[in-house]
Amino acid sequence: MTRDVTFVVFGATGHLARTKLLPALADVVMNESVQRHALVGIGSQERTDEDFARIVHDSLADAGIDASYRDRFFSGRIIYRSVSDAASFETVATDVDTLEREGGLSGNRVLYLAVPPSRLDPTVEGIRTSGLGSGRGWNRLVVEKPFGVDLESAIASNHEIHRAFAEHDVFRIDHFLAKETVRNLLVFRFANSLFEQVWNRRHVASIEITVAESAGVDGRAAYYDESGAVRDMLQNHLAQILTLIAMEPPVEMSAEAIRSEKVKVLQSARPISHDDAVLGRYTRGAIDGIQVPGYLATEHVPADSTTPTFAAVRVHIDNWRWQGVPFYLRTGKGLTRRLTEVVVRFHKPPVCLFHTEGDCQGHQNVLRLRLQPDEGFELLIGVKRPGDDTEIGQIPLSVSYDEILDGAPTAYETLLADILQGDQTLFVRSDEVEASWKLFAPLLNRSDIYSYAVGTDGPFSANDLVTTDPGVWSAL
Amino acid sequence: MTRDVTFVVFGATGHLARTKLLPALADVVMNESVQRHALVGIGSQERTDEDFARIVHDSLADAGIDASYRDRFFSGRIIYRSVSDAASFETVATDVDTLEREGGLSGNRVLYLAVPPSRLDPTVEGIRTSGLGSGRGWNRLVVEKPFGVDLESAIASNHEIHRAFAEHDVFRIDHFLAKETVRNLLVFRFANSLFEQVWNRRHVASIEITVAESAGVDGRAAYYDESGAVRDMLQNHLAQILTLIAMEPPVEMSAEAIRSEKVKVLQSARPISHDDAVLGRYTRGAIDGIQVPGYLATEHVPADSTTPTFAAVRVHIDNWRWQGVPFYLRTGKGLTRRLTEVVVRFHKPPVCLFHTEGDCQGHQNVLRLRLQPDEGFELLIGVKRPGDDTEIGQIPLSVSYDEILDGAPTAYETLLADILQGDQTLFVRSDEVEASWKLFAPLLNRSDIYSYAVGTDGPFSANDLVTTDPGVWSAL
Repeated sequence: MTRDVTFVVFGATGHLARTKLLPALADVVMNESVQRHALVGIGSQERTDEDFARIVHDSLADAGIDASYRDRFFSGRIIYRSVSDAASFETVATDVDTLEREGGLSGNRVLYLAVPPSRLDPTVEGIRTSGLGSGRGWNRLVVEKPFGVDLESAIASNHEIHRAFAEHDVFRIDHFLAKETVRNLLVFRFANSLFEQVWNRRHVASIEITVAESAGVDGRAAYYDESGAVRDMLQNHLAQILTLIAMEPPVEMSAEAIRSEKVKVLQSARPISHDDAVLGRYTRGAIDGIQVPGYLATEHVPADSTTPTFAAVRVHIDNWRWQGVPFYLRTGKGLTRRLTEVVVRFHKPPVCLFHTEGDCQGHQNVLRLRLQPDEGFELLIGVKRPGDDTEIGQIPLSVSYDEILDGAPTAYETLLADILQGDQTLFVRSDEVEASWKLFAPLLNRSDIYSYAVGTDGPFSANDLVTTDPGVWSAL
Repeated sequence: MTRDVTFVVFGATGHLARTKLLPALADVVMNESVQRHALVGIGSQERTDEDFARIVHDSLADAGIDASYRDRFFSGRIIYRSVSDAASFETVATDVDTLEREGGLSGNRVLYLAVPPSRLDPTVEGIRTSGLGSGRGWNRLVVEKPFGVDLESAIASNHEIHRAFAEHDVFRIDHFLAKETVRNLLVFRFANSLFEQVWNRRHVASIEITVAESAGVDGRAAYYDESGAVRDMLQNHLAQILTLIAMEPPVEMSAEAIRSEKVKVLQSARPISHDDAVLGRYTRGAIDGIQVPGYLATEHVPADSTTPTFAAVRVHIDNWRWQGVPFYLRTGKGLTRRLTEVVVRFHKPPVCLFHTEGDCQGHQNVLRLRLQPDEGFELLIGVKRPGDDTEIGQIPLSVSYDEILDGAPTAYETLLADILQGDQTLFVRSDEVEASWKLFAPLLNRSDIYSYAVGTDGPFSANDLVTTDPGVWSAL
């Protein structure tokens, strides 16, 4: 299959582009057998094409990209343009047209916006008015997360985008969706009838979703203070995992069918009451023996900041499958360890048959889906302890998934390959992003923020949310 | 608690007594804190008390019984008597009375019958008429398996036994029931709601029960040719595992409640038709590189023997829980390896969502309960293979149970302890043994016996029984 493409990357010299995007572009050009390509780097600063080429070269080298892949990538034209006003967008549009005609490219464009939310609407407007988004082939807009800073801004951005692009050409990124372990969630659910049969309120007592980071905000404090746990993690990563865990089986494994089921989960969520959420901010403590300053004492963080670094929420999905089953979502920085996992707790047996000295020996089956690190599965079961009495012990059936992940594509390689193929399955649809903001944006106004020390599991008050067994969050 | 007991063991110098029973008696005297005890060995041969004491001593030493346990066991009186006719039974009864009075024993008697089925009824009659079964304390009759050789003989033996003993004093042994992994089956089922919820015809496609032995009949041919796979294994061990796997939850974990549910399984079984069973007999082959003669060429086996060394049966349990779910039972000698396991196959998903080039990628969850060796659990699940296509691979969640079995009591220690405590849970009730014979005895008349070579998985025709996925037995 002959295929050619022009990558137009906004924010092309930023951190994300250098560490993730540019290396993934080189890989995907090779692995997807792109016959011809060009790269147009765009930023606000003035740079020469040569400056940019050097940035690209260093990025690929730092990422350990194979030399043959690097050479192949540099066989395409690589240019850089800065944009500031409408006129500069028009210059870029003209230059890209020229570049495509000279290079024999058919005008398929990936317009990749690695820019902060505040730059999103002006950039989209510039693309529209300049005609940059009207290449002769297909034109696909890629938008990095976070998409918007609240419900109103997300609606406004969607409106701006839809003036120039049909939804089927818009690719909103949440790179969590491209992690192999997250992609496996739907396979796990719908290829294993054993679990899908019990994946509902009759059998499940509660579900816990954790995205914990041990690191603080060092070096990213200026960005982070504008964002916080709700915008940075809860509204996107945790919301997405929630939808994949809770959604109904799709009609088929197509982007529209899957996303239509995912959005229904968010639409079924009960508005989050005050008692359903606990926010936190870390105070000084130690990670791996190294002292970390408290959040408010961090450089670039205003002393009167009300940005939470931790959020724990109890979500109720009021549909036929999940009514009455609490979903406990938790995320934060400066926690005990880095861990992303889903914990499904099943109901205890309805009748207690095993007793020791009159006490019921209840046992709860617990399924752990570990998404990172130590990817794998664990299912706790009760077994008889050897001996004359019937005492119940607990042992874990487990399997590591990380071995078979060796050599798997990175999240960005997967996302770029899907963009080239026009597959939107792993991207967030406009109604999804709005439903997620609708659910979580009310947390943005909260000023009641509990303290927790760096290196702990978060504020103790978060346990108040856990109204089901065992009455506390799983230890990190 | 002060407790004293007189063990009266018939067949006291036989293979079972020397290798299993006598060592377990020494252990149980110690571990159950029996304050005073005596041992009366009974056989058909004439021996002195000293001869028997030496046999006991050697048995305990061979079994590696701790010296302090041995000394403690020899602190009780140990005598030997031979029986042949009614008069000799009366002599024994008188001697045991005397021994108990002199030793300050209160007349609690365990009458342990380690005798072949043909000696069962005469021995029970001798016990009854002599008054040996009427000690001043409690009198408990223990009968080794096999109990009877067919339905008629089992009914007759139960009748004879009930002339002298109430059912609550009768302990029919199937030592499989005392294995920790078999005892765990009820805990696994009723302490884990995850599995019990899917343990029925809506979710289970088939269940396979295998008790495979790699050894041939060497040294036991004379016994075995009278017995065969149906009497030796199917009617007792496999039938018992079947009842534990298929039974309804008991009202409580009491002997009567559990056994009442177990017998219902056998009573619900559809009579086994000709097409539901395949019998086999091994021909020469190799086990671990050592040549083994064919069964018919084995010393003490008649050339016209029709004894099967292999039996495979498809059992249908026609009740609300299991109607339509085949239970595949298989046992044999000279097979690929020694293995006792239960394999539960769940239905595939009702809808196929994952395809590769148009082909459905179905996946079946399979749960393996390994009872011996390598005791443990394995659950096969489908997961996404890493990469851009959604291909489903299979990985096993597993856990080894054998580590926590270290130091567990042996089956005979468990059984003897329960006999002393009067706990009949692990013993086969009269109606159970009769229901099991009623189900399996018709196989005794079959003369269509397929050949299979030693070191294989049994006759190939056994696969004809497997009408559900995957259409063949699990490889051994």
